Amino acid sequence: MIVVISDSATDAQVEQFVKNMEALGLSAKMIQGEAKRVFGLVGDTASLEAESLMRNDAIEKVMKVSAPYKLSGRSFHPEDTRLQLYKDGPYIGDGDFAVFAGPCSVESEEQILSIAQDVKRSGAAMLRGGAFKPRTSPYAFQGLGLDGLELLEIARQKTGLGIVTEIMGPEYLSVFEKDVDVIQVGARNMQNFSLLRELGRIGKPVLLKRGLSNTIDELLMAADYVLKDGKASVILCERGIRTFETATRNTLDISAVPVLKKRSHLPVIVDPSHGTGYWDLVYPMALAAVAAGADGLIIEVHNQPALALCDGQQSITPALFDGLMGRIVKLREALQ
Amino acid sequence: MIVVISDSATDAQVEQFVKNMEALGLSAKMIQGEAKRVFGLVGDTASLEAESLMRNDAIEKVMKVSAPYKLSGRSFHPEDTRLQLYKDGPYIGDGDFAVFAGPCSVESEEQILSIAQDVKRSGAAMLRGGAFKPRTSPYAFQGLGLDGLELLEIARQKTGLGIVTEIMGPEYLSVFEKDVDVIQVGARNMQNFSLLRELGRIGKPVLLKRGLSNTIDELLMAADYVLKDGKASVILCERGIRTFETATRNTLDISAVPVLKKRSHLPVIVDPSHGTGYWDLVYPMALAAVAAGADGLIIEVHNQPALALCDGQQSITPALFDGLMGRIVKLREALQ
Amino acid sequence: MIVVISDSATDAQVEQFVKNMEALGLSAKMIQGEAKRVFGLVGDTASLEAESLMRNDAIEKVMKVSAPYKLSGRSFHPEDTRLQLYKDGPYIGDGDFAVFAGPCSVESEEQILSIAQDVKRSGAAMLRGGAFKPRTSPYAFQGLGLDGLELLEIARQKTGLGIVTEIMGPEYLSVFEKDVDVIQVGARNMQNFSLLRELGRIGKPVLLKRGLSNTIDELLMAADYVLKDGKASVILCERGIRTFETATRNTLDISAVPVLKKRSHLPVIVDPSHGTGYWDLVYPMALAAVAAGADGLIIEVHNQPALALCDGQQSITPALFDGLMGRIVKLREALQ
Amino acid sequence: MIVVISDSATDAQVEQFVKNMEALGLSAKMIQGEAKRVFGLVGDTASLEAESLMRNDAIEKVMKVSAPYKLSGRSFHPEDTRLQLYKDGPYIGDGDFAVFAGPCSVESEEQILSIAQDVKRSGAAMLRGGAFKPRTSPYAFQGLGLDGLELLEIARQKTGLGIVTEIMGPEYLSVFEKDVDVIQVGARNMQNFSLLRELGRIGKPVLLKRGLSNTIDELLMAADYVLKDGKASVILCERGIRTFETATRNTLDISAVPVLKKRSHLPVIVDPSHGTGYWDLVYPMALAAVAAGADGLIIEVHNQPALALCDGQQSITPALFDGLMGRIVKLREALQ
Repeated sequence: MIVVISDSATDAQVEQFVKNMEALGLSAKMIQGEAKRVFGLVGDTASLEAESLMRNDAIEKVMKVSAPYKLSGRSFHPEDTRLQLYKDGPYIGDGDFAVFAGPCSVESEEQILSIAQDVKRSGAAMLRGGAFKPRTSPYAFQGLGLDGLELLEIARQKTGLGIVTEIMGPEYLSVFEKDVDVIQVGARNMQNFSLLRELGRIGKPVLLKRGLSNTIDELLMAADYVLKDGKASVILCERGIRTFETATRNTLDISAVPVLKKRSHLPVIVDPSHGTGYWDLVYPMALAAVAAGADGLIIEVHNQPALALCDGQQSITPALFDGLMGRIVKLREALQ
Repeated sequence: MIVVISDSATDAQVEQFVKNMEALGLSAKMIQGEAKRVFGLVGDTASLEAESLMRNDAIEKVMKVSAPYKLSGRSFHPEDTRLQLYKDGPYIGDGDFAVFAGPCSVESEEQILSIAQDVKRSGAAMLRGGAFKPRTSPYAFQGLGLDGLELLEIARQKTGLGIVTEIMGPEYLSVFEKDVDVIQVGARNMQNFSLLRELGRIGKPVLLKRGLSNTIDELLMAADYVLKDGKASVILCERGIRTFETATRNTLDISAVPVLKKRSHLPVIVDPSHGTGYWDLVYPMALAAVAAGADGLIIEVHNQPALALCDGQQSITPALFDGLMGRIVKLREALQ
Repeated sequence: MIVVISDSATDAQVEQFVKNMEALGLSAKMIQGEAKRVFGLVGDTASLEAESLMRNDAIEKVMKVSAPYKLSGRSFHPEDTRLQLYKDGPYIGDGDFAVFAGPCSVESEEQILSIAQDVKRSGAAMLRGGAFKPRTSPYAFQGLGLDGLELLEIARQKTGLGIVTEIMGPEYLSVFEKDVDVIQVGARNMQNFSLLRELGRIGKPVLLKRGLSNTIDELLMAADYVLKDGKASVILCERGIRTFETATRNTLDISAVPVLKKRSHLPVIVDPSHGTGYWDLVYPMALAAVAAGADGLIIEVHNQPALALCDGQQSITPALFDGLMGRIVKLREALQ
Repeated sequence: MIVVISDSATDAQVEQFVKNMEALGLSAKMIQGEAKRVFGLVGDTASLEAESLMRNDAIEKVMKVSAPYKLSGRSFHPEDTRLQLYKDGPYIGDGDFAVFAGPCSVESEEQILSIAQDVKRSGAAMLRGGAFKPRTSPYAFQGLGLDGLELLEIARQKTGLGIVTEIMGPEYLSVFEKDVDVIQVGARNMQNFSLLRELGRIGKPVLLKRGLSNTIDELLMAADYVLKDGKASVILCERGIRTFETATRNTLDISAVPVLKKRSHLPVIVDPSHGTGYWDLVYPMALAAVAAGADGLIIEVHNQPALALCDGQQSITPALFDGLMGRIVKLREALQ
């Protein structure tokens, strides 16, 4: 950590600062510049917050040098993580590419079975489907809840596809532990630290979506909450950030893919459905994500998008999904 | 709800759309423009999501006319809500002004007692203090937890000040129900719908902070989650939104105060400590919030900000707080 | 345009509103909803600003139905525009793909010639190079100015490549008209309307970069300023928007490509150099842009990036550029 | 400037870097940390861009220590600037408070005279009024142009109020130099560097509005462009930034006032009309700006807001303005 001393700081203040740092087990080494006095703090600065030092009037600026995350970072784990999604199931990461597809909400046995069979035939690695839905409005459809989980279980038994679905709070942890293969944490819960900690104790793979206004470094720190107990693995998911642009539901930050791949060893997937909010943007943005180096995709597929109980406008049909999967195979060959 | 038909839509598509709406119990009334066909949907459209209609190729645009929130809105409840903060305690709203002050984190009995006595003397209505801290990094100080709650309880007994502190998940609901007067939901949990629902069932006043990237309407919909059971009341809190500007920790959206006061009957307070991130901006921004019509403030006060275990850089000293409280009295007189 | 009447509006106010609209040559047709009175304005509403109506207390909401741009839109011109970049030169748009490459700044004859020959060999359609540089700081290198234009002219003569370079104000219009093939308007000048109007009168193709915080619709309205005189054509360029994320210089909005292609007939290119700010992100983001359907790219190439007088960190070497161009060919085949 | 070396850098690369810096007249002094090698660059680093160094693979991070602006900063000029707005006119800054008021657009002699007399009576220091209007759409009213300037001149003669109006390009510089007292640069032109340079040569006070997506430091660098020739002075204006929130036209960043006052000696004013976009938010936000320490305000006042040719929705009536001016006097007394 680098500390720049204020022009107005007295020598006594600077000496006191050096003593404070030593009391924390750090050593403060000075460089005397022509215009500025600057210190480098040497030692374990991980738990020292850059901003806390700023209250000291003698200090003008503080800059962290080390990355604020550890377990999800490449310095801790240089090689790509390759992760098996469920027992006897496919892998993701380190060259393995996986697509999670299915409806926004589970609506009925007929619906989920029909879509599951379709997406399996097209090559999806897992079935996604919402049982508990985080809705901005308390007056909107909130999902089928436990009944939805049961329908997903039926679809798993009939198709053999693993299940990924979103958890909204710790109250159903034991059910998810039993019935779900990959547990999804939605964008609104990316910094629900109490939930992240609990998930880390279970050990199932966690699909962690980037929050609407969270930076890439904050996503990696959230992943560290899950990884801390050493049991669980994490799949990172870019799903669009909130900006001033209203032509799309969010701004899908495709550049997050190469940035995350550079900083982290974890698999990175992209959600072009939530990331854009419009079904006709899903196809080009799915291809863009693949071209940028994503390890996978999560895509909303619905057999009757116009009648979907939620997010129909961003769902594609099984036929369009099938065409997209074929195109992705060609694209990945061209990128070899 | 207003629906604009695509130029390319066929008459058959339009007829089908009208039938679909009727099947939902809505009637679709047409205006034939020169350039565009437009329908107004009449009936209960609260649970119909504007975006869902967009999947229909025959539809170009959909616009909600009614506000997406109900219980927190003025049409439901035109008069300002005036709320007693705790038994025999002060009021907030409808002309009553209240300041919540105290340290970011509870650190020790000595610390919390000393600050509690200071802020009480200066006229604070409640003591704030963090026992469970939501920290971006898993490696930063996470608060004293239940021990912190006990220290707050001691401070309450010795000073008579009510207690406001943050809850991070449903696991401690019963403890908060017993020991805390106003339960704070932090910005990161504003859309933790499962927690909001639980809080609504308890019935204690909830201090609901606006999320970093949440709109004013989303804040009011989150308040509706709490209000839905009819037991709890809500205090809304503007605490800064995330923008591109890095000179401040967040951009404190002071204009949210008059906008919220116009749309909602609930008391509105401002947090100039988190909203700016720098102690020397707390004073001017607290005054700005009062001038804009806020019903109260929540301010971090620490007796030794330079040594605070978290967020010291945004805490003011008891002496500065005392000066601020005096200035606020004068300012409020000038605004009469 | 759709106008929603306030609940509190009197009948007299509504009648007055209808008369005001008729005085503007518009007719206001009413739909009586259960909860709301709504009017559709029929007639030429292009010059009527939605917001202006809002000052009327009788009006609660106003929503534009028609697109705010005309000449750049698909309703005016449904087919893709195919544009010849310069006399006897290559085309862009409607299936033709073109890459503009070269250094951020023209630095010397040796430098620009060497890079021009390299990028031509790799298949670039035009040479880009800055003579006048818009620099945030008045203390940074401002470009070689007219001397830089002369060096570009030499490079054109020796390589046959057309020239694209940025204009910063109307004072050099006559020089640019003579010496430059495609005139670039930078992000900071996207809404320099006085400059846009002048460029429309010249008639050379204009490469119009999206402003850092401009929406897609604002970009198309800016294009309309250039197109208004009917002489000039426009190439639209996505180059990143300003968001809260600091891991990249800007957030490159790849989804702007399919959105622009849907709304406009104009060719759309992407600038992965300014859009990311880091040379190692240029390669994956260039591929992502191609996969998303861009008609071309503009890329900073420098023979000695570490010594570049500006923006070296986002420039790639001629060798890396050559590899990228080969990969793009394969990618475009896979997308056929 | 602080430079952090990559973990993977070889000693030879580091030596080469030190030599490169010495070739630029800088000395690079090293601190050897436990985990990182860090250098401080000592010497004149003003023209060296932090990002340029980043192209060097041996470098991981670069951080500027000195402020990127000079002439507008407090280190160059510690005392507040007090500025006379026009010959024999009022002052702004260093305790003097000034309000600029008038219509968005000059529409007719009757309109501008009537408003000028009203705002003068209420205590405005200058008359504002747009002659050339920067409009996002080429189809919207663009202002009366030179005729508008003449009408402002008439209003000046009849009321004695100085005139502030916006310049959109260098083509009318000589007219503005003769007829306008304070020349306004709009938000969209804040980084029109070619215009800023020209204005610096004239020497009239420049009212420089912050761009929609520009940081505070960028505003101060833009001010430096104007101040560079030593002839002109600058008034800084916060007028709202672009964020995700749509309840207001922009998000008025009131905290920019104390931040600017801390970093710069220049007078700082606030525009609550453009900053919010709604006339009923102008009053509370004007008071908030005063409470936060602004040196003045610029406010849109229109005698018939509902009929205004532009921005009527954000204009207040002369009567409301008069009440606001009285309230501001009381507020400023309470802040003494």
